[in-house]
Amino acid sequence: MSGRLAITELIGRKRDGGELTSDEISGLIRAYVADEVDDAQMAAMLMAGVIRGFSTDEAVALTEALVASGDTIDLSGLAGPTVDKHSTGGVGDGTSLVVGPLLAEAGCQLAKLSGRGLGHTGGTLDKLESIPGFRVDLEPAQLREQVSTVGLAIAAATAELVPADKRLYALRDVTGTVASPALIASSVMSKKIAGGAGHVLLDVKVGDGAFLPEASSASALAQLCVSIGQRAGRRTGALVTDMSQPLGDGIGNALEIAVAIETLQGQRGGRFRELSLDLASAALQLTGEAPETARGRVEQLLDSGAALERFARFVEAQGGDPRVADDPWGVLPAAPVVRDWSPGDGWVASIACRRLGELAGQLGAGRQRQGDDVDPAVGLDLLVRVGDQASADAPAVRIHARSDAAAERVLQELPELLILTDEPVAPPPLVHDRVGVA
Amino acid sequence: MSGRLAITELIGRKRDGGELTSDEISGLIRAYVADEVDDAQMAAMLMAGVIRGFSTDEAVALTEALVASGDTIDLSGLAGPTVDKHSTGGVGDGTSLVVGPLLAEAGCQLAKLSGRGLGHTGGTLDKLESIPGFRVDLEPAQLREQVSTVGLAIAAATAELVPADKRLYALRDVTGTVASPALIASSVMSKKIAGGAGHVLLDVKVGDGAFLPEASSASALAQLCVSIGQRAGRRTGALVTDMSQPLGDGIGNALEIAVAIETLQGQRGGRFRELSLDLASAALQLTGEAPETARGRVEQLLDSGAALERFARFVEAQGGDPRVADDPWGVLPAAPVVRDWSPGDGWVASIACRRLGELAGQLGAGRQRQGDDVDPAVGLDLLVRVGDQASADAPAVRIHARSDAAAERVLQELPELLILTDEPVAPPPLVHDRVGVA
Repeated sequence: MSGRLAITELIGRKRDGGELTSDEISGLIRAYVADEVDDAQMAAMLMAGVIRGFSTDEAVALTEALVASGDTIDLSGLAGPTVDKHSTGGVGDGTSLVVGPLLAEAGCQLAKLSGRGLGHTGGTLDKLESIPGFRVDLEPAQLREQVSTVGLAIAAATAELVPADKRLYALRDVTGTVASPALIASSVMSKKIAGGAGHVLLDVKVGDGAFLPEASSASALAQLCVSIGQRAGRRTGALVTDMSQPLGDGIGNALEIAVAIETLQGQRGGRFRELSLDLASAALQLTGEAPETARGRVEQLLDSGAALERFARFVEAQGGDPRVADDPWGVLPAAPVVRDWSPGDGWVASIACRRLGELAGQLGAGRQRQGDDVDPAVGLDLLVRVGDQASADAPAVRIHARSDAAAERVLQELPELLILTDEPVAPPPLVHDRVGVA
Repeated sequence: MSGRLAITELIGRKRDGGELTSDEISGLIRAYVADEVDDAQMAAMLMAGVIRGFSTDEAVALTEALVASGDTIDLSGLAGPTVDKHSTGGVGDGTSLVVGPLLAEAGCQLAKLSGRGLGHTGGTLDKLESIPGFRVDLEPAQLREQVSTVGLAIAAATAELVPADKRLYALRDVTGTVASPALIASSVMSKKIAGGAGHVLLDVKVGDGAFLPEASSASALAQLCVSIGQRAGRRTGALVTDMSQPLGDGIGNALEIAVAIETLQGQRGGRFRELSLDLASAALQLTGEAPETARGRVEQLLDSGAALERFARFVEAQGGDPRVADDPWGVLPAAPVVRDWSPGDGWVASIACRRLGELAGQLGAGRQRQGDDVDPAVGLDLLVRVGDQASADAPAVRIHARSDAAAERVLQELPELLILTDEPVAPPPLVHDRVGVA
């Protein structure tokens, strides 16, 4: 990138629908990080790309350039296949808390760099921090050490990891340039690749509570992510899964930890358990396990209690109180106000997924902007799903609030968010598509 | 514009091909000037608009918003119709120096805010400053006073006039978002409307030496500018004219002043005189003069010497030496090195217009970037045009240089820029289109 002429030439080419070479993209990102290309020029380039589209080659080159902007984590030499699992984000979506221990118990090495919740979505780090004492700020050496002994570590990404993505993401957020498959895929995959795992399983969410509302665009994103991962030498697969309604029964930080633990305890079934097993099975397939045996193996690890025990070791290794695994509500913070609500009698026809996530956020479980504090105790329990029969005698939603007034505000809105019908309703499919895994 | 959400919503709408309301556009520009919308957000919006297009309503609203960002000049109450004339820029394009005195002599009041040359194009202010003593920094009150007494003033636009356009233009220049008819038209017309004239004549250049290479896009731009002007209550017209070759015989500051004066003296014919008369006639039509009589009237004002005398008064009013009108080369600075060049015998088939402008700039007549000094004396005389018969015995180009080395560099390149053929060639049309004038 040599000066103003070169960057305006590149912007003009993308504006007119042309393609950038790999060298041009790496030069562009280097120049951006070095402040030789400014935010306005990058925003113009991003907008041109959002409208004109980026090719798969461009997305691959962008991912490589983002990875090259910072440090990478070296997981080589660990005793077992290194695995990472990533969800594009949703409501009640704490499967990593079950999938992680399952895979560790199956002999995989999981060093997962995770994020915090934003908007209507929760974040794994926020959830884990609801366990008293739990620390997420591991140095790369600590992360590696813990993985080698416990098989599982979940930590915050450091500022040195893919710094160009952080800048680009902040820019996209304020310039209307988020909604590009190539930009989303390169952002996701750059962090997975820099994280060092040899096997990457993606859970691409689709529906009202996800960032992508349509299954076709989610499948295209999944395919693009898998292509990028494979071009970078990582065995990569993806499930495209339902987020038209919350996944787990808990929406909130401690609430979701409890759901995960009760699932590991074998006390909970339903879609959350089903998807956790499916994701763990898919990840095992990436490491070479046959599709025919993978599912049975992870079910056995869950039903035997081995994964629950692994979860307790993982919590203890990161400073948390391991008794949470045996008695979640003896350890987790509970909200002072609990209120139940039922929509009446009938079949559940629809649930406003995103809005429920936002309401949990407004109770204090989420944050409106980066840096806000979250309240670990508050949130919602969702006790029915689309296709279930609701009853006036049983709660469909349980509100966990900091105050009566906060609970009351949620109660006011719930009737619009959970719609009943007189006829039976079929539940939506849980998995829409599979890419690179059976 | 209330915060981040509103601006990203507006950007997203334009990104997806939607239209912004007049209120949204005025809010956007106000927020940009107030630094509530940053350069990156504006660059994303501009790129979305360049690709998706802006409607005429959006261009009108943008023009109004730009005008509202700063001061406007009040020309009301002057004794005669107020007129402005603007060229989109070209090579050897000093018609304002003839059109201005002609219109003043015809009873119009011309308060022209002009620019400086940049790149391959010259600027009226640079040309006038080659007259010893000439000042272009008139305060608005001085401008108005001179117009009321001399009928003509040409000055630099102040920083307070359309400041949002200055910021937008600088941003577009570095973000690949110059080439939008709506953005070009709103930039041009906002300055004309803020300049206060009730009648606006545009000369939209087309060809290799112009910013628009194609006649069809130039006609569309002319039509859009006229629509904007008329919606703002200004009687507006446009000619779309040839810039496939330099217009006047001079390319350079003093050289172009001399050509204009010799035209006013009746000593020069050709395309420069023809277009000057056509533009003045078109402007008079905007003020109500019948098309049948306008042309005859301006020819008479030129042939009588009245316009030359008006030019002398105008120069004197702005501090310049008025003797320049009688004896240009007794007053204007001359270059120390003069070299003639001929391509040989044949018909002139093509002239590399933009490159000749750049060569004059490299001799010192122009500037590569804003703020550079210019040399008033240097440049090129172009003594043939496409369709003329060139001769080995007569110069086709005369170089006015500061040094032998500078002249030599131009001589080296000229054979590639002026192409002869054995067959007669038809000259290109001078006027491609007329919008709003006969």
